[in-house]
Amino acid sequence: MCNHHDWLGSDRPARRGFVLTEALKPLCLALILLAGIAYSCASAQVTRQPDFVNSLMPQPAHLNSSAGRLRIGPALSVVTDHYHDDRLNSRIVLALDHLAQDTGVHLPFHQATTDPAETSLVISVLGPGQKIQSVDEDEAYSLQITSQGAHLRAATDVGAIRGLETLLQLVEHDDSGYLLPEVSIDDTPRFKWRGLMMDCSRHFEPVDVIKRTLDAMAAVKMNVFHWHLTDDQGFRIESRTFPRLTLMGSDGLFYTQEQARDIVRYAWDRGIRVVPEFDMPGHTTSWMVGYPHLASAPGPFSIERHFGIFNPVMDPTRESTYVFLDKFLAEMATIFPDHYMHIGGDENNGAEWKQNPRIQNFMREHKLKDTAALQRYFNQRLVAILARHGKLMIGWDEILTPGLPKSIVVESWRGSDSLVAGARQGYNGVLSAGYYLGHMDSAEAYYRVDPLPPDADIPPEVAGRVLGGEACIWGEYVDAHDIDSRVWPITAAIAERFWSPQTTTDTNDMYRRLSVESLRLERLHLTHLTQEDESLRALAGTEEIAPLRTLAGILEPVIFNIRGPWSEKHGVTQQDPQNHLIDALPPDPESRHLFGQAVQTYLQNPRARLEQKTMLTTTFRSWVDIEPQLMLMISASPRLAEAKPRALELAELGSLGLEAISYLSTNTAPPVGWKTQKLAVLDKAAQPEALVRFTVLKPLHDLVDAVQ
Amino acid sequence: MCNHHDWLGSDRPARRGFVLTEALKPLCLALILLAGIAYSCASAQVTRQPDFVNSLMPQPAHLNSSAGRLRIGPALSVVTDHYHDDRLNSRIVLALDHLAQDTGVHLPFHQATTDPAETSLVISVLGPGQKIQSVDEDEAYSLQITSQGAHLRAATDVGAIRGLETLLQLVEHDDSGYLLPEVSIDDTPRFKWRGLMMDCSRHFEPVDVIKRTLDAMAAVKMNVFHWHLTDDQGFRIESRTFPRLTLMGSDGLFYTQEQARDIVRYAWDRGIRVVPEFDMPGHTTSWMVGYPHLASAPGPFSIERHFGIFNPVMDPTRESTYVFLDKFLAEMATIFPDHYMHIGGDENNGAEWKQNPRIQNFMREHKLKDTAALQRYFNQRLVAILARHGKLMIGWDEILTPGLPKSIVVESWRGSDSLVAGARQGYNGVLSAGYYLGHMDSAEAYYRVDPLPPDADIPPEVAGRVLGGEACIWGEYVDAHDIDSRVWPITAAIAERFWSPQTTTDTNDMYRRLSVESLRLERLHLTHLTQEDESLRALAGTEEIAPLRTLAGILEPVIFNIRGPWSEKHGVTQQDPQNHLIDALPPDPESRHLFGQAVQTYLQNPRARLEQKTMLTTTFRSWVDIEPQLMLMISASPRLAEAKPRALELAELGSLGLEAISYLSTNTAPPVGWKTQKLAVLDKAAQPEALVRFTVLKPLHDLVDAVQ
Repeated sequence: MCNHHDWLGSDRPARRGFVLTEALKPLCLALILLAGIAYSCASAQVTRQPDFVNSLMPQPAHLNSSAGRLRIGPALSVVTDHYHDDRLNSRIVLALDHLAQDTGVHLPFHQATTDPAETSLVISVLGPGQKIQSVDEDEAYSLQITSQGAHLRAATDVGAIRGLETLLQLVEHDDSGYLLPEVSIDDTPRFKWRGLMMDCSRHFEPVDVIKRTLDAMAAVKMNVFHWHLTDDQGFRIESRTFPRLTLMGSDGLFYTQEQARDIVRYAWDRGIRVVPEFDMPGHTTSWMVGYPHLASAPGPFSIERHFGIFNPVMDPTRESTYVFLDKFLAEMATIFPDHYMHIGGDENNGAEWKQNPRIQNFMREHKLKDTAALQRYFNQRLVAILARHGKLMIGWDEILTPGLPKSIVVESWRGSDSLVAGARQGYNGVLSAGYYLGHMDSAEAYYRVDPLPPDADIPPEVAGRVLGGEACIWGEYVDAHDIDSRVWPITAAIAERFWSPQTTTDTNDMYRRLSVESLRLERLHLTHLTQEDESLRALAGTEEIAPLRTLAGILEPVIFNIRGPWSEKHGVTQQDPQNHLIDALPPDPESRHLFGQAVQTYLQNPRARLEQKTMLTTTFRSWVDIEPQLMLMISASPRLAEAKPRALELAELGSLGLEAISYLSTNTAPPVGWKTQKLAVLDKAAQPEALVRFTVLKPLHDLVDAVQ
Repeated sequence: MCNHHDWLGSDRPARRGFVLTEALKPLCLALILLAGIAYSCASAQVTRQPDFVNSLMPQPAHLNSSAGRLRIGPALSVVTDHYHDDRLNSRIVLALDHLAQDTGVHLPFHQATTDPAETSLVISVLGPGQKIQSVDEDEAYSLQITSQGAHLRAATDVGAIRGLETLLQLVEHDDSGYLLPEVSIDDTPRFKWRGLMMDCSRHFEPVDVIKRTLDAMAAVKMNVFHWHLTDDQGFRIESRTFPRLTLMGSDGLFYTQEQARDIVRYAWDRGIRVVPEFDMPGHTTSWMVGYPHLASAPGPFSIERHFGIFNPVMDPTRESTYVFLDKFLAEMATIFPDHYMHIGGDENNGAEWKQNPRIQNFMREHKLKDTAALQRYFNQRLVAILARHGKLMIGWDEILTPGLPKSIVVESWRGSDSLVAGARQGYNGVLSAGYYLGHMDSAEAYYRVDPLPPDADIPPEVAGRVLGGEACIWGEYVDAHDIDSRVWPITAAIAERFWSPQTTTDTNDMYRRLSVESLRLERLHLTHLTQEDESLRALAGTEEIAPLRTLAGILEPVIFNIRGPWSEKHGVTQQDPQNHLIDALPPDPESRHLFGQAVQTYLQNPRARLEQKTMLTTTFRSWVDIEPQLMLMISASPRLAEAKPRALELAELGSLGLEAISYLSTNTAPPVGWKTQKLAVLDKAAQPEALVRFTVLKPLHDLVDAVQ
């Protein structure tokens, strides 16, 4: 098959075991970049690889493979030979459903006490996972596949659940059907805490979004769903003790207790913990709409519609605040069984504490020298309340202050320095800095961030306190419609960082496997691949979006630090629709990686690389040629008007590319001033505009630079 | 914009008010047919139409328009000037949300008692709709839009809900933004019963599927959701009185009572009645798994996995059967408030009644001469039970037997003859024959079916008993993944048949508006447009599906009468995955309509129509050229193997087309035997294969025929 990361010059065999006919390659890239689509191409001679093509994501700790194959057919059946329980059974049934969807073969499953048949997939589990899954859940498994059968072994059903995902990822095929490669895998995660944080306050995410997110997390072996349930912009969990929290603080958009319990159960079925976050004492405007006496300033309060850091903060000097929190957290403890509760604790600016004479007085009386000290006091009270309800505290960096017990976990949005500093003091920590999906970084950039950087000089006992990390999707600029494309497949690369050995760092191979995983995630009903076309159709008001797709194919959203200030300047609120071009575009589209590779290959020998020259020329010409159609599409849809400057630049970039190729391939010198002028074009194209940016500027820069 | 139904030769202005540059037309079709995608193109000169482009679906009863426009901007606000209630308010808020999504303008809404502002959208409703919506609900509304403001008037909030949908469909734009055309609309439905039946027994459909179906129904002004909840293959509604119905008869796939009530409420909010169907006395295997004493033959029973007509049938001679049904229907009456309950009544083959001596004896004692008479006895008992719970009976044709009261409604799967025959006897009727979506007919074919054919000689009082019709989606070969693409947008054409005047019959105009409506339905989260690519990616195992899309673009599913026997022969069951090529393809794809139009236009003057010649030649060449790539894709995915014959035929059809065009455009005679040979190619391509059929054979036949 036309595997991107192979036909652009790598010698690695394509994932399905085919190699490419050279003649078909140019067509591939040209059409990808021309129409935003890619023609599939493959070699005429099918060459089976002796070893299987490893597309596992995350990569396992240890893997050996050999040439044998186990054919998937009706002769194969699945048995649990020792322990089984409802969770394990339901996961096996689901895995077999997925296998049937992929292969058309429905394997029978039964619980055996006698010896299993020869050609069976035997699942041997010693016992159940923890009733309340903890950080120390045993997730290890081993998987042996021979041409005679397969054996999945694990100490717990959670380990077996991880192994089932590996098994599904191993399915291959040849001309006569589907099969499993002969492998021996011993696998266990590098980090214990492999999380995804989802902010459901700033934009509400329906239950279905969360369930399919949990499906995707399970597919890449993540184990913590960190659920950011409250913030200034909305209180999203039903409290029966304090009904005004959602009655007045949610716009009616919240999870009922039944829904939350259902999600906890759904997650547990997949070996995923749910850690709820009730962010406090700051980020609490939505609490105060219904309960203004919690606040440090007089009300009334209304739901915050804008994004940023705001003054409302709980009053830590009143006993009534703790009475309230005690009752509230007691109620939440009946919904969320996890040992941890996340209390946020971030971004309290202390303004209202400084302005309130009563609070200032309290601080003096209690010898609390500043607002950080007052927040420490608040956190100490919270730790005690949590303990009364059997819970441990986790919070953002700010909670890490002297006097808090070593049982807390610090989640670092500041970075690994902060994380390691905490670990040196004896605190367990989880890294989220570097994994903020809203930053619109590339999968490669996230993939390079390691909770325990290999070059850091950290003693083992300190390293052991770094529990893992969490990808974070904050809710300012995502809604139910586009969240999948912001989170997936990119989070699969982060999940691999958390699970696989530190030495698993080959970026090209990661991208190859990521594109395989992306399709698997789509089969789990994630909408990351369908959302772009759907959004472009809505923007253009027509089904015929090909020219727009060409433009969109080499654009991606601007980084958070540009969208944030822009939104502030334009008064964007929670209630504004997410229906702009930026919202249609996925971060880190394939064009970024592919176009760069094509240009690099070409530049290695511009006068010999005819194939790349054809590809690039066809691509650049298409950018020039579609301009009239694109302009008409834009003029026909007011919502596309903002894209006009980018559409004009597309043609300019196409001309630039054609000229550069022409000079390079003929070894001709350009006129004086050409390079300066073209670099100016690139500089202009690099400016923020319409909240979208080109993915191809760096390679174009290289092209222009190469012209002598 | 590149509007299909315009650039293929019609003189009608394109929907957005643009006309096409002739030069861009060839590119359009070539690319649509080449790559399964369409380039959008439009004229360089934007010519505003004096009258608005009417894209309403369904068309209103009366409409006048003029040249004025009401600009949608922050100066416009929405007020209810008289009556308002929660339902009306929530629908207005939702409509304004959709408007904001489409236009970026969020109109403020308030309830006014004083005079509304000048540039306002005033909603005047006299009072609430019926608490339990009946067949006689008043759904009429009027809508006046001038450049000064808009006024929506209705007697009930249901009428206003219909009018809001019209308002949303009227939104247009020019270069400076969005606006509403100056129109005066008086609208009321032609038929009172405009339904969609969904079979959730043979395949279960999750709550979300049903909710988005209700959203789509509301968008095209349908008002009855007929919910087929029980059948041989699954019992899908929770009974607390008889828990074994779902415990043993549903595989765990059923609606809880809470979910069913939620759906009823959701439908009522949209002015849609929910008529539940409990099919009996046949089609009841799933009941008998848990309650075998209901049956006419000894058990045990198990859920039926195959499709067809089966023997299990309730025993109508035992009093215990009626005691059971009385309790069961009493319970269901607490969930479903509609005045009607559907008791099915179809396809009882009577076999078990004939084989049971006790039942035969009963028939003799009660002078019931045949099994139809026994079923009439059963129905008479049912009518009485339903009446006790305040319900009227509706059932399929078979219930229409002497002795049943005139209060029943007969739903005809047999046809309008049967329907009208019933109406002549005084029975109210609803037509479903001709609207079976699973038949995979074209929108045009469904559109032509009229519950009251204009040529029928039916007295007005008889005609009045024809209440309307129902589109039907049976569940044998649809699942949650593909159901949207089987139902939408095609059902919008049927909805128009039920709502609009009998004289609304222009098929080309229907197709033009259907493509507009299709995009609106996508914005309501229907998945009919995304499903094809998603399924092709899964089939091919790659994101690069362009060659496959070219093939798929001129294929559609075979008709039910081919798939049915094929499935029976191959032992297909409810549990087999719906993951074949046929399941990826939407019925009645645009290629059928577009390609036919292009060939017709060309054939009007083959030697002068250069533009169509170029289009067709490019298209045919692409069919030939992609063969190698397509073959490699197919050989790379075992699940695509079945498509191989069709892929080979694609190239043959391309060659045939190229040759025909060559002879026609040069007025050259083909060699002897050419025509016979090519017609044989077309005959072969017309044979069922891989359960998919070509959409282009008729026009190709015309092309070959035209060669002299």
